[in-house]
Amino acid sequence: MQLILLSGGSGKRLWPISNDLRSKQFIKIFKTADGQYESMLQRVMRQIERTNADVPITVAASKSQETVLRKHLGARAEISFEPCRRNTFPSITLAAAFLHDKRSVPSDEPIVVCPVDPFVEDQFFGKFVELSRLVVEDAASIVLMGIEPTYPSEKYGYIIPSTTEPISDVVEFKEKPDATTAQKYIKRGALWNGGVFAFKLGYILEQAEKILGFRTHEALLENYAALENISIDYAVVEHEKSIKVVRYAGDWKDIGTWNTLVEVMETNFIGDVRADSSCRNVHVINELDVPIVCMGLNDIIASASPEGILISDREHSSYIKPLVETIHQQIMFAEKSWGTYRVIDVEHDSLTIKVTLNVGSRMRYHSHERRREIWNVIEGRGLIVVDGDVRSIGAGDVIELPRGCKHTVIADSRLKIIEVQLGAEISVDDKTIFEPRGVSKK
Amino acid sequence: MQLILLSGGSGKRLWPISNDLRSKQFIKIFKTADGQYESMLQRVMRQIERTNADVPITVAASKSQETVLRKHLGARAEISFEPCRRNTFPSITLAAAFLHDKRSVPSDEPIVVCPVDPFVEDQFFGKFVELSRLVVEDAASIVLMGIEPTYPSEKYGYIIPSTTEPISDVVEFKEKPDATTAQKYIKRGALWNGGVFAFKLGYILEQAEKILGFRTHEALLENYAALENISIDYAVVEHEKSIKVVRYAGDWKDIGTWNTLVEVMETNFIGDVRADSSCRNVHVINELDVPIVCMGLNDIIASASPEGILISDREHSSYIKPLVETIHQQIMFAEKSWGTYRVIDVEHDSLTIKVTLNVGSRMRYHSHERRREIWNVIEGRGLIVVDGDVRSIGAGDVIELPRGCKHTVIADSRLKIIEVQLGAEISVDDKTIFEPRGVSKK
Repeated sequence: MQLILLSGGSGKRLWPISNDLRSKQFIKIFKTADGQYESMLQRVMRQIERTNADVPITVAASKSQETVLRKHLGARAEISFEPCRRNTFPSITLAAAFLHDKRSVPSDEPIVVCPVDPFVEDQFFGKFVELSRLVVEDAASIVLMGIEPTYPSEKYGYIIPSTTEPISDVVEFKEKPDATTAQKYIKRGALWNGGVFAFKLGYILEQAEKILGFRTHEALLENYAALENISIDYAVVEHEKSIKVVRYAGDWKDIGTWNTLVEVMETNFIGDVRADSSCRNVHVINELDVPIVCMGLNDIIASASPEGILISDREHSSYIKPLVETIHQQIMFAEKSWGTYRVIDVEHDSLTIKVTLNVGSRMRYHSHERRREIWNVIEGRGLIVVDGDVRSIGAGDVIELPRGCKHTVIADSRLKIIEVQLGAEISVDDKTIFEPRGVSKK
Repeated sequence: MQLILLSGGSGKRLWPISNDLRSKQFIKIFKTADGQYESMLQRVMRQIERTNADVPITVAASKSQETVLRKHLGARAEISFEPCRRNTFPSITLAAAFLHDKRSVPSDEPIVVCPVDPFVEDQFFGKFVELSRLVVEDAASIVLMGIEPTYPSEKYGYIIPSTTEPISDVVEFKEKPDATTAQKYIKRGALWNGGVFAFKLGYILEQAEKILGFRTHEALLENYAALENISIDYAVVEHEKSIKVVRYAGDWKDIGTWNTLVEVMETNFIGDVRADSSCRNVHVINELDVPIVCMGLNDIIASASPEGILISDREHSSYIKPLVETIHQQIMFAEKSWGTYRVIDVEHDSLTIKVTLNVGSRMRYHSHERRREIWNVIEGRGLIVVDGDVRSIGAGDVIELPRGCKHTVIADSRLKIIEVQLGAEISVDDKTIFEPRGVSKK
């Protein structure tokens, strides 16, 4: 058995704490035993460790998530990188071809596909063994996990099973019905489609060849941007006759909106929040260094990050997307392989950022064509390389980097720099990376 | 007739847009014809211009308000500076002594005292002529303005007049009664005490000598910190037998809390605010560069500034003080005589600020004992003086200022600087000012 975890893309529905660089699975909202916070992804990885300790994991993710994924995953999982963001079918087939071609996984190996961030009980992951067994026994071409509904939701797809047994054939699928219809389905024993699929590796590669026209990792990778942008549900599952479903009766939440996110928060407030005793059912996530004061609020969700501030009642918080789509500003905060950067001042011809490098980390050797930079080191020690010259730097040093110079920095201790960028067209895209041997790569 | 305007101190009740350096009278919330915003003080100055164009104005204010007062007043008014913050009686007597001793205003001149920021109709200020006339005619030692109450408020003091005539003798004063008692007073024709007092200059100086022990400007100034910290109501008005009151029947609001502030806002949103159509009776003042998104809110007041974020329902917004008193952080934004500064990063041994100097302005020649500074010029042109050496600076220049060096900057155009301060004990108090002739002044 092999596990493929699908790492979804960025969403605007959890703005301002998710943005184009930070998806919901990476938001740290779960308090751990040591008082720190862990992300949805980290929570899921711990659950899989407890239930499927030896199962190899491959995360299917966009290249843009590399840094943050490595941080949250550690060495536990491999990553199948997509050159650009596509729907679940291309993403799953690329990861499957990666396993087949690059990791020599045989065609009859059972594969279980699961989203990277379901909020569920351990037994959910425990059931993967059952899905895998059914695949191995050729009980069906595809085995799904069906979640027993707790209410007639209009947000989910429904699986209609032939019986209410723990394992059953699937009669049909119903996409997001209205509440009355959903109620009827539930009476017939219908289950929510939780996005978990199991099949043999060879099966999905055959489907890939048939539907997308390619089946090797190399060909899929090369043609990735042009592949049909289709979900596995539409591409495969809805046309397949041989499907079984395994029932899961525990907690299941899809943490896709503020309303569902706060349902799983273990504390009402994260960050510097001062609320008076009249606040009821208020949830606040504050990522800023200044306090949020709350008074007399009921059923309110609030969040502040370098990107902006959200204040919403719980019910309306699901409808944030159109409002956030009116906001056009640059990314104000990002996690990088070497640490973090935060924009602290924006002017027409300058941008000031705070760069924090982790101990032992280094930026890639790079240059900028259209801006010069002034680095004000405010904490720590390290080495800087400018056009091949190496020198030590430490708190209080000022380094002026002219346009076009090649430079990098290596942190001996945690290193903090106030970086003033000066130029007429400052952009994150103005960056040329140089490989160790001096080969340039845009 | 002379007008003394009392400029009140900083308050926490309008946090986060008021702080120790910025009082409510300076907050810009009134939209002007040209689409800009003006402050309560600027609005009052325009009203006085329309109703009492030729009356000399003296503003009684703390020295710490000098910069912001000069900006909001222009050349229209003189300022009587208090060396420290005291209650209204010391403040009024100091301003009165200033007029008598420094401006040769005679003892029989009628003086009208008024808060700097009542939200009223023009006719309120028009009535000053009547107060002044009654003082000149010796109708009473003190003449007050009484505001006809609109509801039995528990927040204000009541004046009980002998008749309901436009001008009447005062029978007695009642401090903040409960609503039932207030209702009884109102039936008897009682008026709110709006903090407007008129008297002859000599009268208040006699009271000063009797109660405080001093009557000259020099003596009052010298002993200011030790003067009894008492209001004019308690010190004088409640003991005086000869008092008349002039009735005022128009709008009157004391903009001291968020609840009253939003009542006078002409637009619901100031700054970058995106609210959905389900928001009802929502008021937001956003002083940050990032957006505030509001959804599904009712009767909510929100505000964001570099100091923090407030989210409150309207009713509870009056009770902000105890919560805000738990916040101990440095001032993040301030207006100075030369422009503004904003703290953009805080670390243990460094502080990064953005300094914006207005065209033609200059800092005072100064030095710091316990920090060095790195100035990154990001916009504009100017001159910098360091230990007597003068040089031009412009966008892109970096100036390193060692500990102890004397320095200043003069802006030829609007000048913006990212200033990185480095040292173990960074404090706004670490500053030695040098007068032009080199005389140091802490």
